[in-house]
Amino acid sequence: MTEPCFDVAHLGHLEILTNRFDESLDFFVRVYGLTESGRDGNSVYLRAFDDYEFHTLKLTKSDTTGVAHIGYRVSSPEALERRVKVIEKMGCGIGWVDGDMGHGRAYRFRSPDDHIFELYWDTKRYVAPEAEKPKLKNIAQRYHGRGVGVRRLDHFNLLAKDVRAFKAFMVEALGSRVTEQIQLDNGRLGGCWFTVNNKSYDVAVTEDHAGEASHARFHHITYAVDQREDILRAADIFLENGVHIETGPHKHAIQGTFFLYVWEPAGNRVEVANAGARLILAPDWQTVTWTETERKKGQAWGLKTIETFHTHGTPPVAAKH
Amino acid sequence: MTEPCFDVAHLGHLEILTNRFDESLDFFVRVYGLTESGRDGNSVYLRAFDDYEFHTLKLTKSDTTGVAHIGYRVSSPEALERRVKVIEKMGCGIGWVDGDMGHGRAYRFRSPDDHIFELYWDTKRYVAPEAEKPKLKNIAQRYHGRGVGVRRLDHFNLLAKDVRAFKAFMVEALGSRVTEQIQLDNGRLGGCWFTVNNKSYDVAVTEDHAGEASHARFHHITYAVDQREDILRAADIFLENGVHIETGPHKHAIQGTFFLYVWEPAGNRVEVANAGARLILAPDWQTVTWTETERKKGQAWGLKTIETFHTHGTPPVAAKH
Amino acid sequence: MTEPCFDVAHLGHLEILTNRFDESLDFFVRVYGLTESGRDGNSVYLRAFDDYEFHTLKLTKSDTTGVAHIGYRVSSPEALERRVKVIEKMGCGIGWVDGDMGHGRAYRFRSPDDHIFELYWDTKRYVAPEAEKPKLKNIAQRYHGRGVGVRRLDHFNLLAKDVRAFKAFMVEALGSRVTEQIQLDNGRLGGCWFTVNNKSYDVAVTEDHAGEASHARFHHITYAVDQREDILRAADIFLENGVHIETGPHKHAIQGTFFLYVWEPAGNRVEVANAGARLILAPDWQTVTWTETERKKGQAWGLKTIETFHTHGTPPVAAKH
Amino acid sequence: MTEPCFDVAHLGHLEILTNRFDESLDFFVRVYGLTESGRDGNSVYLRAFDDYEFHTLKLTKSDTTGVAHIGYRVSSPEALERRVKVIEKMGCGIGWVDGDMGHGRAYRFRSPDDHIFELYWDTKRYVAPEAEKPKLKNIAQRYHGRGVGVRRLDHFNLLAKDVRAFKAFMVEALGSRVTEQIQLDNGRLGGCWFTVNNKSYDVAVTEDHAGEASHARFHHITYAVDQREDILRAADIFLENGVHIETGPHKHAIQGTFFLYVWEPAGNRVEVANAGARLILAPDWQTVTWTETERKKGQAWGLKTIETFHTHGTPPVAAKH
Repeated sequence: MTEPCFDVAHLGHLEILTNRFDESLDFFVRVYGLTESGRDGNSVYLRAFDDYEFHTLKLTKSDTTGVAHIGYRVSSPEALERRVKVIEKMGCGIGWVDGDMGHGRAYRFRSPDDHIFELYWDTKRYVAPEAEKPKLKNIAQRYHGRGVGVRRLDHFNLLAKDVRAFKAFMVEALGSRVTEQIQLDNGRLGGCWFTVNNKSYDVAVTEDHAGEASHARFHHITYAVDQREDILRAADIFLENGVHIETGPHKHAIQGTFFLYVWEPAGNRVEVANAGARLILAPDWQTVTWTETERKKGQAWGLKTIETFHTHGTPPVAAKH
Repeated sequence: MTEPCFDVAHLGHLEILTNRFDESLDFFVRVYGLTESGRDGNSVYLRAFDDYEFHTLKLTKSDTTGVAHIGYRVSSPEALERRVKVIEKMGCGIGWVDGDMGHGRAYRFRSPDDHIFELYWDTKRYVAPEAEKPKLKNIAQRYHGRGVGVRRLDHFNLLAKDVRAFKAFMVEALGSRVTEQIQLDNGRLGGCWFTVNNKSYDVAVTEDHAGEASHARFHHITYAVDQREDILRAADIFLENGVHIETGPHKHAIQGTFFLYVWEPAGNRVEVANAGARLILAPDWQTVTWTETERKKGQAWGLKTIETFHTHGTPPVAAKH
Repeated sequence: MTEPCFDVAHLGHLEILTNRFDESLDFFVRVYGLTESGRDGNSVYLRAFDDYEFHTLKLTKSDTTGVAHIGYRVSSPEALERRVKVIEKMGCGIGWVDGDMGHGRAYRFRSPDDHIFELYWDTKRYVAPEAEKPKLKNIAQRYHGRGVGVRRLDHFNLLAKDVRAFKAFMVEALGSRVTEQIQLDNGRLGGCWFTVNNKSYDVAVTEDHAGEASHARFHHITYAVDQREDILRAADIFLENGVHIETGPHKHAIQGTFFLYVWEPAGNRVEVANAGARLILAPDWQTVTWTETERKKGQAWGLKTIETFHTHGTPPVAAKH
Repeated sequence: MTEPCFDVAHLGHLEILTNRFDESLDFFVRVYGLTESGRDGNSVYLRAFDDYEFHTLKLTKSDTTGVAHIGYRVSSPEALERRVKVIEKMGCGIGWVDGDMGHGRAYRFRSPDDHIFELYWDTKRYVAPEAEKPKLKNIAQRYHGRGVGVRRLDHFNLLAKDVRAFKAFMVEALGSRVTEQIQLDNGRLGGCWFTVNNKSYDVAVTEDHAGEASHARFHHITYAVDQREDILRAADIFLENGVHIETGPHKHAIQGTFFLYVWEPAGNRVEVANAGARLILAPDWQTVTWTETERKKGQAWGLKTIETFHTHGTPPVAAKH
């Protein structure tokens, strides 16, 4: 066994595209409870109240939906250099970009499905303006209690044509560990859950049922709340605000996360989740592999996985003729 | 800035002494909800249902109370070697021991207050016997729902004569980061909260009001539950079982943890805690420093810190004459 | 408007039949968390920890399943006389019985579907033996925290061939108020929710899809827990104990109750529910009527009603040939 | 035993005085989560989202604080006549008033401490304007999730010079039942908890430590939330909004209610409470009497009763010289 890699510290932010910008922004701010920390051009920068960085979601006006890029923060400047070397060697590097309103220069590269990732060290810490200063100084921003009121960015989920190839990519490029996975009867991997730190996962990658028509598709973004009760309360808030609730609240069999999935107005899937006190502390965690038979039992308490969960991704795949 | 140290993976276990062995064991198993995984000589090995190792609490028959030793698991065999070199150089090393029922060889060393620490890599994973196998294979043991039913070891708290000296020790010996601390008006540190991973703290060290009479004293051990509601429920369970509830449930100002403190029958303080979704993800987290004035506001929602919280530790300090 | 009727105080108990007596008893005591308060002949008397009467569930050994009888306690001896007069006039009276281990003489009568009801005034209050005495004297029995640990009997659900006829029966015989109902497109009532006090319902009666084959069938019995979190926790307890979870946890659209349905080993459906702070305080509450179209939206947050919820009742209906 | 009295259906509303009108209104609407349903002259009419009547709190501009009057709704027009007869006979009647924006004519009378009560039958049901219509039609108004977001009026607490005299008044005038009480060592009653329905209490009356200086003083008003978690969340909301938190969250020994007390900007004490699934269903409930010794144990889990809880009432009592 080689030593575990700690070069990548944590998931930093996602850039999400929307073709219904005003409605999506209203959803994320008023209903989901994020706070705007800045805007430029076609984008608004958003954050949950205890995210320590300037932003964790960049919402960008577009003629389509899906994820534009995903940013991870590294552990140190040296770690960034090490990762770039590995990625360049892998041949999937794109190159350096100057950074963004919320962070400094970043190195971009491509997943096997063409999703754009970036790694960065220099970041801009969120400094709460007077009206957003918390009463307890160990949280980044006041708990405003608006809408769902999520606490921090948790993870995201991508769709991939070949999960096994994606797994190799994540392990090599980011030094991610595979905490859980689904082994299909046909020999393919149905899904993989990865982490770079003690969270049980920061990204899930699942097989895109759209097959070859799929290209860099996005499944969902998730913010964490402190308690499962926050998710039950969120369900009422989504209901009253006319948000499409896709499935949940329920408890995932995989990872044991308590979940609720909705579609924001443009169709991007958004989750609210709570992992309880679960953490992956073992440095030599052994991947938990679920068989297809086991998965057919549904979620933890028997809820069947809803059909759209396998078919709906963003951007949508054009109907075939 | 040097790169952050990831040599130590997580807190592994504590050995706690009791002079009321049967009553303490009954408390930890029937009321607190731990499971016995083994026993030898004067000790019983205990674990919470989702601890991945064989044990996280070694309860040992004694003529006194307090903590006998604290074990941390390292990230790799190489990390163990690196740490031992550092500790030997610090001059606080004791040497190698063969290990225990729950893990392999370990290197022992002393805190400035003579608490015994150990580092180890080789561990014994818990293998659930048939009756304890969970229905979902990503947890270590079935959720039996007995008593408080804590999920996993969370952290512990030691008392120290000189918190500043202890801080230097933890940072150097374990590579811990200081996430929060109390700066007293007299220039001393009142307390320090440390972590080696993404948990907001795995150990707190607070000033012992017993002063020079203090020697390697113990403040409390804490297991985590998944939800704050589990703590409210625990309060009723403690009440009905005649367990002394010292303070709580309430929310700490420091770290924001929801807490409940009780004394097990021999007098060792035991906490049940929930941190919500709070994690320390920033690799360059900036220590939050609380002043004495700020601390006088009490806990997050105004509860005053109870007097015994400053005076009661184990073993008790002999009355002065 | 005539004055509201307060003659019947509350649902008192159900007698449930089981053809797997030992397994059913183990379920109700060890998993569901009831306490045995007595037994005689083929029956065991069970109670939740805050039921004030001797028992709320009489579990009886049988060669079939379903409900044997339902008991309601009246508000006073005079109220009992008034009710008996009304019922005798209705022509559905059976007559007086001597009572049972848990209460005094009772007047029995039949529902339009032949379910046996009884009304009684004289009851036996539960007196906790030493080991069951609570630390707070305003609850009936200590909170033991065993299994799901339900607090008190809440309501039950019967199946009926003709809900409209059943509605007339309940309103006249017990003076029940109809808090909510389902109006089907075919002119029939799909279900009715009744209450005799401030609870939003103490009985639901829904149309039996078995049609003419149906006879005095039972849908489910429900005990209340204090918090929704108790229901999420219950789901894990059911899962780990191999209990069939039929549907939930989720929130009902009708009545807004948070629910979880399981089948006890003999097949009788059992619910755990929490109504939050909802009460029917208006003395002139106006029945809420749901259309078939509205019901097709599923439960509050979109969960579709599971097929067995319409077809599974006890005793089972013989397959048709 | 005479038959229980069901003439009074439920607590209807309170009129609270404030000498900081704008701040108090901001507190009740933005922080506590009530909705304005009307205003006239010096008063604003407020309601919780599931109160079925037009208002449950009338907030009135004044040069002082405290309660101006308390309204209870009766069970029927006939019940109103019966009660008025009784009250007139008691000699504490004031007479009929025309009613208010939220209800029709009402009969007013005085408590032994000069608190003004009124009984009414004709009420104005809340009709939600389009923007406030709930997605589920069995609640009165949409769950807007603003601030604490309380569900419905629960109870209130008055101070009295002579609790025993007040007890006789409540039992005779309203037909209330005494569910719990405190028996002091000096032979006086320290407090009494009353109910007219299945709620465990709708009013508490406790001895005013201000003694003879006391006149018609007010202790607190309470709205109910659905879950204890809502109260923990409320604590953070109060904290962030600079509201004075007096004590809690904790569980009362008496009645077992989970509570949190704050002072609105003018000084009136306001509670958020959750009673779990506890109801008083027994028509012949036996009053639970607590001794002074028992009360000294503090609240359910040991929290000591805070001094201001005994001394702070509204309006404040002038300092003695």
